[in-house]
Amino acid sequence: MPKQAPAEIELRTQNQLSELFAALDSGTGREVRRMLQTLTPQSIAQLLESSPPRIRQVLWKLIDKEVEGEVLQELTDKVRSQILATMDTEEMVAVMEGLDADDVADILQDLPERVMGEVLSAMKETDRSRVESVLAYDEETAGGLMDTNTVSVRPNLTLDVVLRYLRRHAQLPESTDSLFVVNRRGQYIGLLPLSKLLTTDPGVTVREVVNTDVEPIPADMADTDVARLFQKYDWITAPVVDDNNRLLGRITIDDVVDVIREDADHSLMSLAGLDEEEDTFAPIPRTARRRALWLGINLLTALLASWVISLFQGTLDKVVALAVLMPIVASMGGVAGSQTLTVVIRGMALGQIGRSNLSWLLSRELGSGALNALLWSAVIGGVAAFWFGDSHIAWIIVAAMMINLVTAAIAGAILPVLLRALRIDPALAGGVALTTVTDVVGFMSFLGLATLYFA
Amino acid sequence: MPKQAPAEIELRTQNQLSELFAALDSGTGREVRRMLQTLTPQSIAQLLESSPPRIRQVLWKLIDKEVEGEVLQELTDKVRSQILATMDTEEMVAVMEGLDADDVADILQDLPERVMGEVLSAMKETDRSRVESVLAYDEETAGGLMDTNTVSVRPNLTLDVVLRYLRRHAQLPESTDSLFVVNRRGQYIGLLPLSKLLTTDPGVTVREVVNTDVEPIPADMADTDVARLFQKYDWITAPVVDDNNRLLGRITIDDVVDVIREDADHSLMSLAGLDEEEDTFAPIPRTARRRALWLGINLLTALLASWVISLFQGTLDKVVALAVLMPIVASMGGVAGSQTLTVVIRGMALGQIGRSNLSWLLSRELGSGALNALLWSAVIGGVAAFWFGDSHIAWIIVAAMMINLVTAAIAGAILPVLLRALRIDPALAGGVALTTVTDVVGFMSFLGLATLYFA
Repeated sequence: MPKQAPAEIELRTQNQLSELFAALDSGTGREVRRMLQTLTPQSIAQLLESSPPRIRQVLWKLIDKEVEGEVLQELTDKVRSQILATMDTEEMVAVMEGLDADDVADILQDLPERVMGEVLSAMKETDRSRVESVLAYDEETAGGLMDTNTVSVRPNLTLDVVLRYLRRHAQLPESTDSLFVVNRRGQYIGLLPLSKLLTTDPGVTVREVVNTDVEPIPADMADTDVARLFQKYDWITAPVVDDNNRLLGRITIDDVVDVIREDADHSLMSLAGLDEEEDTFAPIPRTARRRALWLGINLLTALLASWVISLFQGTLDKVVALAVLMPIVASMGGVAGSQTLTVVIRGMALGQIGRSNLSWLLSRELGSGALNALLWSAVIGGVAAFWFGDSHIAWIIVAAMMINLVTAAIAGAILPVLLRALRIDPALAGGVALTTVTDVVGFMSFLGLATLYFA
Repeated sequence: MPKQAPAEIELRTQNQLSELFAALDSGTGREVRRMLQTLTPQSIAQLLESSPPRIRQVLWKLIDKEVEGEVLQELTDKVRSQILATMDTEEMVAVMEGLDADDVADILQDLPERVMGEVLSAMKETDRSRVESVLAYDEETAGGLMDTNTVSVRPNLTLDVVLRYLRRHAQLPESTDSLFVVNRRGQYIGLLPLSKLLTTDPGVTVREVVNTDVEPIPADMADTDVARLFQKYDWITAPVVDDNNRLLGRITIDDVVDVIREDADHSLMSLAGLDEEEDTFAPIPRTARRRALWLGINLLTALLASWVISLFQGTLDKVVALAVLMPIVASMGGVAGSQTLTVVIRGMALGQIGRSNLSWLLSRELGSGALNALLWSAVIGGVAAFWFGDSHIAWIIVAAMMINLVTAAIAGAILPVLLRALRIDPALAGGVALTTVTDVVGFMSFLGLATLYFA
């Protein structure tokens, strides 16, 4: 099944979008407002994400006040900042009323320091302290992801007491599937799944049924590590603790899914010099600025390749066929190298590649690269011999292609590991570094061998 | 924070792997067996995924029989098939005992038809019928993801009756956070969250507290669509129904997380001509075969570019500086185009791009492309003038670069949409198609303008 075929869900969004744009064009705000009222906050968020900036502002004004907070919480950081930029403090406080502390903290972190302070001081005392306890942690850590709204119980209670306590509690925090078992000092002991609570004899104590399988997450763990743990162990809820193992809050899988998605997008976007949180509908100035930098870096590598070519101007002047064939050697090296690079970068993102298996991976890439080098250099040699009726040029391109494809395999496997050791993001720098190597080696080997022969 | 920095989790895996390899090298199977016994099935699975094929086979033999099934269920399809290939029917049946029906179905679908039949007929009657009901659906649909092990209740019961029923039930299926409310004919009505059950007055009926927010998923919905719904609505459990709205089973978020991850990886891997389920440690023959095809396709586009260059051999013969500069024009076009392409492909994967906003996107890309074309063609013009002391060559490269960067913006935005309309995967074919355009236009415009001038 082609995964990118227009899917049901996508079609539905696109249809809603078309209707909405049509209604906006005909100029009846009332019609649009009615359409928005029939949609869930999540669908409205998706429509905002899928709209150009100016339409976003218009749509936002037509959304019902009561769902504004929920919609805001569903938006990605970049789009949210754009909308927040149009609000004053009072509006922001109103919008955030009723949201979870972690979501409010998430929104506040997009704001300038000064505005954040104003909004915080305008909030209710209890809400503020809850938000501040999340704000104490970096946005990209477990602490920044957690919800402090938890229900905890002591191990010596009987389930019957817990059941009666819950009955009085009237409501549990959203997506609660477990209670947290803590000792007198608030230190985490284990989970008490609601399903256990419902199916076990009420006379039993919490200690006898506590589930200690889920290890607590330190508040300063990176969010991508949290995401890996959730993926690995299929967790739905996990506790977050401080250095003394005291329970601070909980992370639920729905908060982690976005991290998983962004983490996976990171490699794709970085390889093209883009930010994984980039707004698809960012305006021209921001788009142009970000891309300019990337094009500049790539221009430098292209100039380096040109300089290599310029070393062989004498030979090129003598045999013009070389100019015709030389891009093939460089381009095939780039393609082969980027295949290896992509496999290694993804393997690293999945935590599979390190000292212990790198040498195996390198020899596999060398083996596979050598086989393809043999195959495709033979093909291109045949083509060159036939095209230019010159067996010398054919042998030269065969040799150059073999050199470059093997180099590409080595560079594709080694570069990302080297870059990571230097604490440079391999997904961001790997592609440029690789192209530089395959271009330089490609032109150098082809034109160099030709110079040796024809000079 | 550089997301690819060696993270805690990754280091832990790599350390375990090093220890394990060292123990394997020293040849004491007993030592390795003891180490494996200290690890969770999930960690063992991760170590298997991170090992070259031969070591995988050795490790597998050292794993305790009791956890084999759980480990198998955690592996990706490709690695699992490799291990299943070494077992006979009896071993397979033993390994699958105690696994959920959806996991068994998932494993069976990797096997040849004949083997699948043998394993099924060797299973216990009840297990078999459960597995067969999942096997009736394509692996990549909601039906293929679902677990048929659900607890459902009628709307007219009081919560008290439900509570007493659960108490007798002894155990709820794993990761149950809600019961399903169905009518007399088994048709889905809504969810009864366990948290609601615990906090509401037991005298109330199910009908009064049923949650109808989660819409049922049709069994034939594509798994990527299911993943999008879970992401959008932060669901943890969702019901799967047949055409008559009869409850067939449930999908929980942990089954969906892998789909989300693979869906996100799809674009990354496809752009390099790879399969998103590719085993990082696939052996040489399989790796070489898959990559050969991709290199062959790219050789065709490289030959096309060479043919374009060959049209201008006369001009190249006269002005050798052109051969030095021509790769710059093509390469900058490729880089600019792949940035646009990546943004559009990701936007499409997120369901954001369609008829209604494509023209906005195209004009944004044109605007941003034109700005960068102005900037970088001016820079390269200056460099060329200085390098070759020839203002004519400088003006020619300025014009060619502007043409190619604007073309790249248009091609990057239009090609993926066009390919999708033709039902070709844009992530797979987009990169090749784009490079073909930017190479041909790059060489053609630069050498064509030069020919007009110098001829």
